Parts: sequence; C-alpha cells; structure tokens
Amino acid sequence: MDQLTVILIVSFAVGILAFIVAWLLYRWLVGIKVENKRAIELSKLIREGSNTFLKREYRYLAYFSLVVACLILLFLPKPIWQGSVLDNITMTLAYISGTAFSGLAGKIGIAVATRANVRSAEAAAKHGISLSFLSGFRGGAVMGMAVVGASLLGVCAIYALTGDALALLGFSFGASSMALFAKAGGGIFTKTADISADLVGKVTLGMPEDDPRNPAVIADNVGDNVGDVAGMGADLFDSNVAAMAAALVMGISLDQQAGGNLNIMTVFCYATVGLLASIIGVGTARLKEGANPTRVLNFSTYVTTIVYLILTAGLTALFNFSWRVWGAAAIGLAVGLIIGLTTDYFTNDERPPVRTVAKMSKSGPAFTILSGISYSFISVLPAMLGIAVAALLSYTLCSPLGDGYAMYGIAMSAVGMLSIVGMIISNDAYGPIVDNARGLVEMADLGDEALEITDELDSAGNTVKAITKGFAIGAAGLTVISMLGAYMTEVNVAAVEQGIIKAGESLLEGFDIINPLVFFGLIVGAAVPAVFSAMLMRGVDRNAVRMVKEIHRQFDEIEGLKEGKEGVVPEYDKCISIATNGALRELIPAGLFAIVATIVVGFIGGVSAIGGFLTGNIVSGLLLSLFMSNAGGLWDNAKKYIEAGNCGGTGSEAHKAAVVGDTVGDPFKDTAGPSINTQITVVSLLSSLMASIFLAFSLFG
Amino acid sequence: MDQLTVILIVSFAVGILAFIVAWLLYRWLVGIKVENKRAIELSKLIREGSNTFLKREYRYLAYFSLVVACLILLFLPKPIWQGSVLDNITMTLAYISGTAFSGLAGKIGIAVATRANVRSAEAAAKHGISLSFLSGFRGGAVMGMAVVGASLLGVCAIYALTGDALALLGFSFGASSMALFAKAGGGIFTKTADISADLVGKVTLGMPEDDPRNPAVIADNVGDNVGDVAGMGADLFDSNVAAMAAALVMGISLDQQAGGNLNIMTVFCYATVGLLASIIGVGTARLKEGANPTRVLNFSTYVTTIVYLILTAGLTALFNFSWRVWGAAAIGLAVGLIIGLTTDYFTNDERPPVRTVAKMSKSGPAFTILSGISYSFISVLPAMLGIAVAALLSYTLCSPLGDGYAMYGIAMSAVGMLSIVGMIISNDAYGPIVDNARGLVEMADLGDEALEITDELDSAGNTVKAITKGFAIGAAGLTVISMLGAYMTEVNVAAVEQGIIKAGESLLEGFDIINPLVFFGLIVGAAVPAVFSAMLMRGVDRNAVRMVKEIHRQFDEIEGLKEGKEGVVPEYDKCISIATNGALRELIPAGLFAIVATIVVGFIGGVSAIGGFLTGNIVSGLLLSLFMSNAGGLWDNAKKYIEAGNCGGTGSEAHKAAVVGDTVGDPFKDTAGPSINTQITVVSLLSSLMASIFLAFSLFG
Repeated sequence: MDQLTVILIVSFAVGILAFIVAWLLYRWLVGIKVENKRAIELSKLIREGSNTFLKREYRYLAYFSLVVACLILLFLPKPIWQGSVLDNITMTLAYISGTAFSGLAGKIGIAVATRANVRSAEAAAKHGISLSFLSGFRGGAVMGMAVVGASLLGVCAIYALTGDALALLGFSFGASSMALFAKAGGGIFTKTADISADLVGKVTLGMPEDDPRNPAVIADNVGDNVGDVAGMGADLFDSNVAAMAAALVMGISLDQQAGGNLNIMTVFCYATVGLLASIIGVGTARLKEGANPTRVLNFSTYVTTIVYLILTAGLTALFNFSWRVWGAAAIGLAVGLIIGLTTDYFTNDERPPVRTVAKMSKSGPAFTILSGISYSFISVLPAMLGIAVAALLSYTLCSPLGDGYAMYGIAMSAVGMLSIVGMIISNDAYGPIVDNARGLVEMADLGDEALEITDELDSAGNTVKAITKGFAIGAAGLTVISMLGAYMTEVNVAAVEQGIIKAGESLLEGFDIINPLVFFGLIVGAAVPAVFSAMLMRGVDRNAVRMVKEIHRQFDEIEGLKEGKEGVVPEYDKCISIATNGALRELIPAGLFAIVATIVVGFIGGVSAIGGFLTGNIVSGLLLSLFMSNAGGLWDNAKKYIEAGNCGGTGSEAHKAAVVGDTVGDPFKDTAGPSINTQITVVSLLSSLMASIFLAFSLFG
Repeated sequence: MDQLTVILIVSFAVGILAFIVAWLLYRWLVGIKVENKRAIELSKLIREGSNTFLKREYRYLAYFSLVVACLILLFLPKPIWQGSVLDNITMTLAYISGTAFSGLAGKIGIAVATRANVRSAEAAAKHGISLSFLSGFRGGAVMGMAVVGASLLGVCAIYALTGDALALLGFSFGASSMALFAKAGGGIFTKTADISADLVGKVTLGMPEDDPRNPAVIADNVGDNVGDVAGMGADLFDSNVAAMAAALVMGISLDQQAGGNLNIMTVFCYATVGLLASIIGVGTARLKEGANPTRVLNFSTYVTTIVYLILTAGLTALFNFSWRVWGAAAIGLAVGLIIGLTTDYFTNDERPPVRTVAKMSKSGPAFTILSGISYSFISVLPAMLGIAVAALLSYTLCSPLGDGYAMYGIAMSAVGMLSIVGMIISNDAYGPIVDNARGLVEMADLGDEALEITDELDSAGNTVKAITKGFAIGAAGLTVISMLGAYMTEVNVAAVEQGIIKAGESLLEGFDIINPLVFFGLIVGAAVPAVFSAMLMRGVDRNAVRMVKEIHRQFDEIEGLKEGKEGVVPEYDKCISIATNGALRELIPAGLFAIVATIVVGFIGGVSAIGGFLTGNIVSGLLLSLFMSNAGGLWDNAKKYIEAGNCGGTGSEAHKAAVVGDTVGDPFKDTAGPSINTQITVVSLLSSLMASIFLAFSLFG
C-alpha cells in the first residue's frame, strides 16, 4: 500500500470516528431524563415544526436538484454528445451526493438540537449550569461532528472512486447549491418569525420574550433550529468541502506534473487532523459552577487550534511535506482567529462600539442605525486586511515551491482556517440550542433560577456566534480566492481539449483588469451580492408583514388569548406554516438570480469576463457580508446592553431605539449576511464547472 | 496657426464666454428688487454664515495645501535631487492652480446662491412662479457656468503653458484634493444642521420646517449652500477636470506616437462644445404659469444633449476626427442619461419603490430602513451595469483604432458623459437655492401662496437632484476607470526613465488579478470607501449630538423663545459655529485616511498593488456611493409622499417611521455617498502622480 492509500484509509476512519463520537454524544444526551410535561410538549411542537419545514424545503430542493442534475447530465463537464457519457454520469452522481450529504448533516443537526434544547432547559431547572451547558454544547457538537465527518467522508469517497478533480468540484457544487437554499430559506424563516413575534409581542403588546401566548413563539424557536442549526451547518459543510476541493484540484494538477502524491496527501492529512483536533477540543469542554461559559467555549477553540498545529507539524516532519505549505495553513488559522477577535471587538458589549451605539440610541432610532452602520463599515477593514494579508503571505510563502504552488498555498491557507470547523460548528449550534432552552424555560415556567442560567448561556452563545461568523466569512473568502486558481486551471484544461492551445501551454495566465471583458465582469459581479441580499431581505419583509397580520388576527379572534386565560392556546401551526411557505417562495428567485447572472455574463463575455465576475463577486460579497453580519451582532448586543439596565434600561427611549436597530440587524446577520458566503461559493463552483462551455460559446469572448 | 492653436483659442474664448454669461445672469438676478426687510435680514444671516464657514474652511485647506505643495515640490514628479527642479516647480504651481480655481468657483457659487434665494422667495410672493423659478435656476446657472468655465480655462491654460501630461494630473489633483474636503466638510456641516434642526424642532417640539424660533434654522440654510452649492460644485469641477485630464494624458501619448494633434484636439473640441451646449440649454429654460418645473429642467437637459451631439458630429466631420471616438462620447452621454433615469425610478414618489417604503413604514421604522436598504441595494445594479456596458462598448469601439485607443475611448466616454455638466450643475445648484427660498418664505412669513410655489419648486429640485447625483457618480466611475489607463501609462514612462525597461517597452501590460500583490491591493482598496464614509457619518453623528444639546440649551435658557414671543431671537450664530468647527475637525481624518492608505499600500505592494487598490476602490466606491445616494433620496421622498397625505399623513406612525428613514438617509445622500466620488478621484490621481516613487521604493513590489 502506498502512503496515499494509508492516509485515505485513516481519513475515512477518522470520518467514521466523528460519526461514532456524534452517536455517543447523542446517547449521552438522550440519557438525560426530561419530566416536565409542558416542556416535553412544547419541545415536541418545535421539533415537529422544524421537521415540517425541513421536509418541505428538501422536497422543493429535490425538484430543483433534479433539474440541475439533468442539466449536468446533459452538459457537464462537456455536452454529452461531445464528451464521454461516463464523465457526465460521474459528475451527476457527485453532484447528487453533495446535496445528499449536506441534507443528511442538516437532518442530524435538527434531530439532535430539538432534543438537546429541552434537556438543557430541564437541566437548568434541576441540576444547575454545568449540565445545562453541557447539554447545549454536546448537542451542538453532534452537529459539528456530523458536518465535518460527512464532508471528510464525502470528499474521500469521491476522490478514492474517481480520482478526478472535476468530480470533486461537482460534489462541492452539490453541497454549495444545497447550502445556498438552506441558508437563505432557513434565514428567511427564522427572521420572519423572530421579527414578527417581537413586533407584536414585545413592541405592541409589551409581552416578555418567549411568552407562550404569542402565536409566533413556537415558529420563532423553530426558526433558530432551521436557520442557525441546519442553515449554518449547510453553510459550513459547503465552505469546508469547497476548501478541500479547491486545494485538491490544484494538488492533483501539481502532483501530475511533479509525480508522486505529496500535495494530495497534504490536503487529506491536514483536513483529517483538523477533525481529530476538533474531537479532542469538544472533549475538553466542561463548565464549572460559577465559571464563564464564553471562556469555556473559547478555551476549547484554543485547545483545538494548538492540537492542530502540533499534529500537522508532526505529520509534516514525518511525511516530508513542505514546511512552507504548513506555514500557509498556520497563517490561515491565525488570521481566522484574528478576524474572529476583531469581530468580537465590534460586537462585544464591553467594548466601545456597542456602548457608543447604546448611548447614541438615547437620541432616537435614526442614531442607532447611523452609528451602527458606521461602526460596521469600519469593522470590514481589519477582516478584509486579514484576508488580504493571509492571501499575500501564503502566496509569497509557497511561490518558491514552483509554478502553481502559490495558488495552492492560498487554498491550503483556507484549509488551515477551516481546520477547526468542527469546533466552530459546535460553538455555533450551541447558540440556538440554549436560545431554545431559554424559550422553553420561559414557556414551561421552569423558574427564575433556570431563566437566569439559560440567559447566561444564551448570552455566551451570542458572543461566540459573532466570532464564528467572522471565521466563516473569512474562510469563504480565502476559499473562493483559491477557487479563482481552480477556475483558471479548468479553463486551461478545457482549452487544450478543445484544441485552442497545445498541451503544456496556457490560454489564461491570469485576469487582466485592463481587459475590458474582465472589467465588465468585475463591475457586474460586484453588484450581484447587493441584489441577492436585497432579495432575501425583501423576502423577510414581505413574509413578516403576512405573519404580523396573522398574529393580530389570532389575538383578535381567539378569546382569552391576550389575557392568558387558562387552557387557551394560540394556533402555533398557522404561524409556522406562513413562515415555511413564505421562505420557500422567496428563496428560489434570489438563488436563481445569482446563478442566472453568472451564466449570462459567461455567455456574453466568455471565460475572461467570468474571471472578473468572480473577483467582483468576492470583493463586494466579503464587504457586504462582513458589514451586515457585524451590524446585526452589534445592534443585537447594544439592545441587550440596554436591557441589562444601562442607558435607561428596558422601556426607555434608548431601548425602543435599540429594538429598531435589532430588528433591522436581524435579517442582516441571520439572513442576508451569511447567505452571501454561499452565494459566492456557488457562483465560483458553477464557473469552474461551466468553464468549458463558456470557452466554446460566448458573444464577446 | 495650426488647428490645435485655433481650437485652444476658441476653447479659451468659450471659457471666458461662460464667465460673461455668468456675469449677465448675476446682473439680471441682482436687478430684481427685494423689499421685505425680514427676508433681507435673514438672507444676510445665511450669506454671512456661509461666508464664515467658507473662510474658515479655506483657511484650513490653505494650510493643508501648503503642506502638500511643499511635498510635491520636494518629491513630485521625481525627488527634486534626482529630476529637474523646473518640473517640480511646474507641478507645484499646477497643483496650487487646481485648488485655487476650485475655491474660486465655490466662492462665486455661494455669492450668487445666497443672493438668489431671497429673490426667488420674494418673486414667489409678488410675481408668481415664473420669476421665482427663473431666479432659482439662473442663480444655479451662474454656478454651472463658473465651474465649467473655470475647468475649461484651467485645463487650457495648463496645457498651453506646459504641454505636459503630468502637469495636467497635478492640476487635477489640486482640484480633487480641494473637492475631497469641500464635499466632505460641506456635507458634514449641512447634515449636522439639518438633522439637529429636524430632531429638536420637528420631532421633539412639533414645530414646522424652517420655523424661525429654531436656533438651528439658519445653520440649516447655510448648510444647503456650503454642502450642495459649494461642495457639489467642487465635486463636479473635480470630475470634469479629471475626465479631461485623463483623456488628455492618453491623447498626448497617442499623438506623440502617431504624430499630429488629432486626439488632443478632439478632447478640447468636445469639452468646449459641451460648455457651449450648456449655455444654450440654460438659455432655453422658461417656466410658464401652471407648467411643471421638473419638466422644464429636464427639457433643458435634453436640449443640451441634442445640441451637443449635433455640434460634435459636425466638428468630427469638419476636422476628420474618428467617428469611433464620437461614438464613445455619445455612448457615455446616453449611459449617463440611463443611469439618471434609473436613479429616478428608485427615488420618484410615483414609482413602486418610494410607495412601498412608505407603506412599509406603517409597521414601524425598522421596516422603513429595511425596505429602503433593500431597494437601494437593488438600485446599484442598473447603474453599475450601465457603467460596465459603457466601458465595454467604448473600449470595443475604439480598440480597432490602434494600441492604446481602447482606454482613450473609455476616457472620451467619460468626457461625453460630463459634457453637459454645466447644465447638470445648474440643475443641481437650483435645488438648494429654492430650498433656501422656501425657508425664507416661511421665516419671513411671506404668505401661503408663496409657500405653495416654493414648495413646488423645491420638490422639483429634489427630483432633479437624484438624477444629477446618479450622473455624477456614473461620470466619476468612468473617469477613474480611464484613470487606470493613465496610471499605467505613467508607470511605464517612469520605468523607462528609471532604466528598468528600454524605451518602447512596457513594464506593465495590465494588472493581473491572480498576481497576489494586485489581489492584496484589490481587497484593501475595496475596504477604504466603507471606512471613509463611516468616518464622515460618525462625524455627522458626533457633531449633531453637540448641536442638539446647544439647541435644547437655547430653548431652556432663552425666555419666550419656545413660545415665539415677539422680539425674542435665538442665537443662530452659536449653531453655525458648532457646525463649522465640528465639520472642519471631522473632515481632516477621513480625507487623510484615504490618502495615507494609498501611500501605505504603494510602499508595501508597489505599482501592481496600487493597480489592484484603485480597482477595488472604484468597485466598492461605486457600489457604496450608489447605494447611499439612492437610499437617501428614496427615504427623503417616502417621507414627503406621506406628508402629502398618504399612508396616514403627517403625524401618523408611518410618518414618524419615515422621519427616521429620512434622518438616516440625510448623511447617506448628502455627506457620505457623494463624497466617495471625490475620494476615488483623489486616490486615482495621487497614484498616477506617485507612480514613479512607488516604482522606486516598495517592500514587496
């Protein structure tokens, strides 16, 4: 057996280990007994609501994927009448596997999260913060393990079966198109419910958060699961697969030139170690009574990071991998942490930005908005600088290794940044679980102490979320930068096949900004994320208006509901249904817009225009997603800071203004901002896959 | 005399004609008698306030320019100990002339605008809408003539005296650095005053707009003048000069290669005809009783456009210019109009976007903001598409003329777009004048009929303003795209001089996105406009907080002020002083940030990184300035639509929400959005000027 085979087997084994760990964590979790009937009943409503949404969403997406699969079968990698039928079938199957793995991970995440929430709630009431925390965290960790395990297994399997770069891109495209809709659909759902529940409940009627009389309260909790668990999981599954795929595409091409398998081995080794390190990191998380949950979450992240760096260094020495490539991965990881920390600066309520926004809110909502937008505009600078520096350094570091290594270095930097993604997802899914737990404590009336505990856990979730979101955006940014390299590789391969150039020559050496086609693509590509996110936000707007109307109807028509009469229950399912249907109706046009724009630009301007298009898309996508995610986090925490008794506290003018900010920030941070990530990845992958077609047919190119 | 000399003389003559026309219009204007004492007194206060601000601003800028001039003398175009001393002196003088001409145009504009306002007000009371309109329009036209006359005279003079491309860039840099501060400073001033006056007056105390009891009301009127007249004038002076300079830089280089003066002649001919067409357009403007003032303004614009196209076609035939270049100019002009019309769609209250935002406002301010942001994100698409298509078409059209003509084509497209700038400025300056007139009618109590007239004129001003703003952004976009070409030319010239390459060779053939230095610059450059605009908005925020405090202080301490007791007058000057000092204090860091970022990137990444930096800056700058300008216009008109009695009318919940939107939109559209234009131009010019230095010293480059 050669070394690559050994590594593949080990990778496979670690992928399966992740699922075993997930299973053990799940068994541990369901071993916690839940006794409160009301809590059980409510959590069942949430689980059923989540499953209903997921089922309907997956049905829609199955139709969509079927259409795409047929198109792939006919046209990709080459029109079926020109190339080999087998290639097209492989590509189609790779695409379908990508969607299936992504869907599976989402399904597992929801199944666990909707069981972990009620256990975290009861634990808070009966056993105190330690067990409550662990229930939430391990629930999240199941998702983390499932996502990273699935991505490693999927990529291993596709590579082992085909050894083909295009098939990997096809798998990644499947993951990515799934993520586009899962993130966007879940994002629209969750914010529709959240905004509507708050608007009628909190603002108009002055009810507390999670009041069971509010007809939208279950939908709100369902939203946390489908948006932040399933959606975010699909998003990071997508990023992780894309990073590996991009690195492998270039690694395969480099190894073909050099002989051997060194670069391919590096990718699998590093990715596998990342998963292993995450498993160890998850294992270390324990919360002692009185300790700060945020610290525990961050501590586990640091443990993962250090384990990762040590193990990869060991393997680099063992297998004689290049230290430069290790350096690129380490740079990626370091920059990821820096981006996370600067994000934290702009969204942490102990820092000036949140406090200033809270203070400005005393002058009214316009100032909440203006100061929040200003800070978030500023917040893009360190993150973008970090990405720019990471790209520059890893490129410069790996460039001496030979032609093509520079871009491979950037790809490995992205792999490095995403290496601890298992840990990141665990932290991320922890958030909605404890948020749900807080809701259940309130709705099932589990006592003030439990409310205090879950409040503290929830607040830690929010802080950590900001960091992981910054991380996710940074990783997506680096990944798609390296995708540019993968795209160029594909164009050159296609040019040789179409007889435009001879083998060994390059059609594209790069994308020259002065080339008008590149520039044309650049400007159009930059406009796409803005329009895409606007379509999603308008979706939330429209959907929320429908839902607000429904909530008012219930309060008007159901007697005794407003007064909280014993036994009177709102029609939760109607609100869930509105959110579900609305989300599905609104997400399709936005996703299609991004895809169609890419295809149109490709057929007009050809392969050069697409190079510009991807660049413009990355640049403006990074800018807008950082802006929107950070603005949302900032406003959310400014509101909480005021609710903690500052600047006049709850009910003051400042608080009302901060609620406006929070409402604006909600679709920013949970719908539009993070969806842009997946939009960029989808467009990048689609371009690589269609490179051959754009090369053959285009108006100007 | 050769043809070029004849054309230069004619250009000079037309430039002087513009000043003569301006003088005649001014004489006509001051011939209108003003009799109402209160109006005279108030208008004097506004004039004095404006002059105070201008004087202080110019003093600050004189210091700043002096420092820059010294640096230029020492280092540009080459360090003085390496190159010719004379070159450095020429460059310094060119720079100083650029600032001086810009300042002069601003001064003239203010002098006229602050006399036209009171005449428009009295005319509304005594003579009806026709004369009132003409007073406002001709007041604006003086500014238009002065700006375009000054730019044509300046460019002619610099070219005639030096014949040097770099000197033209130096002149343009002077205009541009002046515009950066004039636009930003004026923008901060005007929005500080506007927001504070509204917040305390309208929102808290329920006073009408322009109530004389409000201590900030004069500052608000001063702001219209210093922001929208002087600032916008400096901005368009800058764009106009930059477009001519970029076209001339490339024209000079093309003519040197081909022999003859054809390309240089084309630039001067087209620019001169543009001014002539604007003079004719201004002459045609008449408002009949009962006619729609918006139509009249648009009609004059169309007249100018048609006259321009016919005359340039005639001259193209006469002098045997290339029809392809004429085509590029025509494309630019057409696209400018298209951008203007799409902007109008998103900000006109007869179209769905404004009406939807007004309707959404019924659900509260968060929905005003969200829907407004969504529409404005969408609004960037047609404008960016327009710019992309204009660049692509004019490039493709002129490319067959030979090497280097493609970029020259884009530059001529920008010249075409800006050809009718005289008309654009007239329309633009008309806005603040009639806005002021409305204020004077209200404050001097000139009667309801006059109020109705000035209201109608003001509303036309707002509609037209949206269009001209779109035009200005589009023109700046195209200009800086062609600046990329100018920059590359300068780098190659410098490389020959520094002995890096031989004469006839090129160091840079373009900017490859795959080059990590270019990419590094690209991402950093994209973040700059976001931070720059955030700094300006934070300036407005901070300043407004100070001013709100002062207004409250006056209402609290000055007895009888709130009640409007006879003879009690607020301390207007204190508010003016706060706005002035705050604006000057806040504008310097923002301007310096953009300049320093450019220099740092240049010294780190060298000439390639700067190529990327400029591109990123253009792309994200266009995106953000279109977004912010359109959002501001949209919210402004949504508020007015509600005030006209829709969606509940003034005082309703929808109205309160719309006021929040308008307040957020104010610094968007009048401070940050349009300032980004000038930021982009400054950075482009600075890069071209420092090309030689970046080539000689840089860390990675």
